[in-house]
Amino acid sequence: MSTVQIDGARFRDRFDAFNEIGATENGGVNRPALSDANRAARDQVVEWFEAADLTVSIDEMGNIFGRREGTQDGPPVLFGSHIDSQYNGGRFDGVVGVLGALEVVEAFNDAGITTDRPLEIAVWSNEEGVRFQPDMLGSGVFCDVFDLEYAYSRTDKDGHTFGDELERIGYKGDRPCEPRELHCYFEMHVEQGPFLEQEGLPLAAVEGVFGFSWMNVSFEGQANHAGPTPMNMRKDAMIGVSDVTRAVRRITATEGTDLVGTVGSVDLWPNAINVIPERAEFTIDLRSYDNSVVETAVQRIQDEIEAAAAREGLAYECEEIMRVDADPFDQGCIETVVEAIESRGYEYTRLVSGAGHDANYLNTICPSSMIFVPSVDGISHRESEFTEWDDILAGTEVLASAVLSKATE
Amino acid sequence: MSTVQIDGARFRDRFDAFNEIGATENGGVNRPALSDANRAARDQVVEWFEAADLTVSIDEMGNIFGRREGTQDGPPVLFGSHIDSQYNGGRFDGVVGVLGALEVVEAFNDAGITTDRPLEIAVWSNEEGVRFQPDMLGSGVFCDVFDLEYAYSRTDKDGHTFGDELERIGYKGDRPCEPRELHCYFEMHVEQGPFLEQEGLPLAAVEGVFGFSWMNVSFEGQANHAGPTPMNMRKDAMIGVSDVTRAVRRITATEGTDLVGTVGSVDLWPNAINVIPERAEFTIDLRSYDNSVVETAVQRIQDEIEAAAAREGLAYECEEIMRVDADPFDQGCIETVVEAIESRGYEYTRLVSGAGHDANYLNTICPSSMIFVPSVDGISHRESEFTEWDDILAGTEVLASAVLSKATE
Repeated sequence: MSTVQIDGARFRDRFDAFNEIGATENGGVNRPALSDANRAARDQVVEWFEAADLTVSIDEMGNIFGRREGTQDGPPVLFGSHIDSQYNGGRFDGVVGVLGALEVVEAFNDAGITTDRPLEIAVWSNEEGVRFQPDMLGSGVFCDVFDLEYAYSRTDKDGHTFGDELERIGYKGDRPCEPRELHCYFEMHVEQGPFLEQEGLPLAAVEGVFGFSWMNVSFEGQANHAGPTPMNMRKDAMIGVSDVTRAVRRITATEGTDLVGTVGSVDLWPNAINVIPERAEFTIDLRSYDNSVVETAVQRIQDEIEAAAAREGLAYECEEIMRVDADPFDQGCIETVVEAIESRGYEYTRLVSGAGHDANYLNTICPSSMIFVPSVDGISHRESEFTEWDDILAGTEVLASAVLSKATE
Repeated sequence: MSTVQIDGARFRDRFDAFNEIGATENGGVNRPALSDANRAARDQVVEWFEAADLTVSIDEMGNIFGRREGTQDGPPVLFGSHIDSQYNGGRFDGVVGVLGALEVVEAFNDAGITTDRPLEIAVWSNEEGVRFQPDMLGSGVFCDVFDLEYAYSRTDKDGHTFGDELERIGYKGDRPCEPRELHCYFEMHVEQGPFLEQEGLPLAAVEGVFGFSWMNVSFEGQANHAGPTPMNMRKDAMIGVSDVTRAVRRITATEGTDLVGTVGSVDLWPNAINVIPERAEFTIDLRSYDNSVVETAVQRIQDEIEAAAAREGLAYECEEIMRVDADPFDQGCIETVVEAIESRGYEYTRLVSGAGHDANYLNTICPSSMIFVPSVDGISHRESEFTEWDDILAGTEVLASAVLSKATE
């Protein structure tokens, strides 16, 4: 089965044409979920799916499915990714998984292969979560993690709801968005981290995904003129933020685990050069593949927040807005990926992903795993995101072999 | 001369009526420079000036002068303050100095006093500097610190220039805005700090104003996904900001001087919960009454910025956008204020101001000093700004005596 031939030139032509949609001046793409550019990208994918003889259906969340029948009935082998982007994001994140899946089907068509089981390509809505929070909303509703009405009510910063915008771009489909029987799910994706490039490897079999905690924290102090207010009478919210930011960095260093932690967003009020910050709102992101490590880190950080507030005389609020457990993928699917890599003769490693993916939610309703290709310099979510074309082709070959293997079980 | 009687009820009625202009729901006022509310406040002041038989003139910067002739010609005794406010600022900042000056003239009128020297009340444009930077723009042009064209070209965040907005509200006057011969300048103002209230004193004779340095600093690191990027590969701009914020706090504590320091404004990019901050822009405000202390602090902070950037692998830029030397007021004017306080029988202290005032610039062209009244809890630039009415009346009595003393020299 390893003889299925990928047509690299065809794939490359499609990849380049696709990334002219919403292209930015600096080589990235700007196609946030349910934007006009996202609609154009969806239209292009649907056109290519139909040209490849896939039967296209759209569900209530705008998830797009392209189905190819097998010789037998029964649950399909599902594979795919997403095509929404960050604001001014990269060309590879998600796109390689969707266009790679299409190339797998085209290769099967070329080779005249009809699988035993049906195949379906999935294109998940709103994976990035930059316009509508939370992320992975389309696969989340599909896997019964979120209610449809909850998803429809998600609102962007301009007050538009997900439901209204989905209707506006014409992708509110009729197919129920709900769990159904699937044989398994595969997703090829860029690593978004530096490990593969550091090790000089083209591929990873992904064994699971880090769990994480997201916290929203606020400190409330007292705004006063930066000149006449003596240092010992200050209640400076920014001092609290600095203390906690340093604590996050210190705790990740001293835990001796795989824990990573980030203060990614900070907003101050009144945010003026000569006024002591009265209020600060900031976020904390803590991740590990060990749920108990995340739990310990959350506890330690909450202690640090309380201590920082007490030192500076601040009031504080700390809300954990999301906690997701670490998610080990299905052992059978992982081994199918490993065998596919070995059958193609590529070097590889087994990796745990620091970032969440649609495959996490799919893994709750069917056996799932992922294939990673390298991210140059570990860069992702930026216009300079880059993956070598040979690595994308290697990943696509492996995806083809893994899908074929599972579809003939 | 201490027998000049202030009419507290009249002053209070005016104060309350005046602060209905641009009043906010939480007891403050919103009258930023050259706003419609600022125009209405100007119109009210001009009406009251004319009703008190003052001859009103407006200069090219919109500074308002109300003149009362003396028995002799010669340079006038000038006194006043400002009526522009912070966004959602307090009712007392600036206003007590302008309406207090008006009450002094009314008291002279009541008592049938004609001074030897002419008197003038000054109402300075754009003292706060929240809409148009820099602050103290009207007195700055008047004292030849800034060019008129520079002032006119200052632009608010909506792209409106100071010159256009001044014309729009009808306060671009004909009188040249330039230094002229003045006998002296007095300004009554709220302390905007906690000292007087802590000491239980109603008044301070202000001996001078802190010098200060303002710096704009930026760190440039690398945006990456907060999950898959290992801690040792991060270039996190927020880590730099935290280090420098802590350094500012540590240096102010360990210098053993009157140095105060503030990181008041912080902006991150992309400012997202799950992305490592790529870029940070923030400000540093350093103040002391000793210029060499400010200089040393600036050097130490610049070293800290360089060290923080090196530790995290960040690029940085650091620009000192303003440096103002400490400004000792005129000894003769300080003693006039002290004698006026003692003649009225009030307790007082001598203070140095941490905040800049129009009196700083006036002090460069004529002998100047200030009278401070207490700020409850040291609060200023906020809607909850408050000064006890008795303290305002005490300050107004002292202003009357100081003006009368200098006007009969």
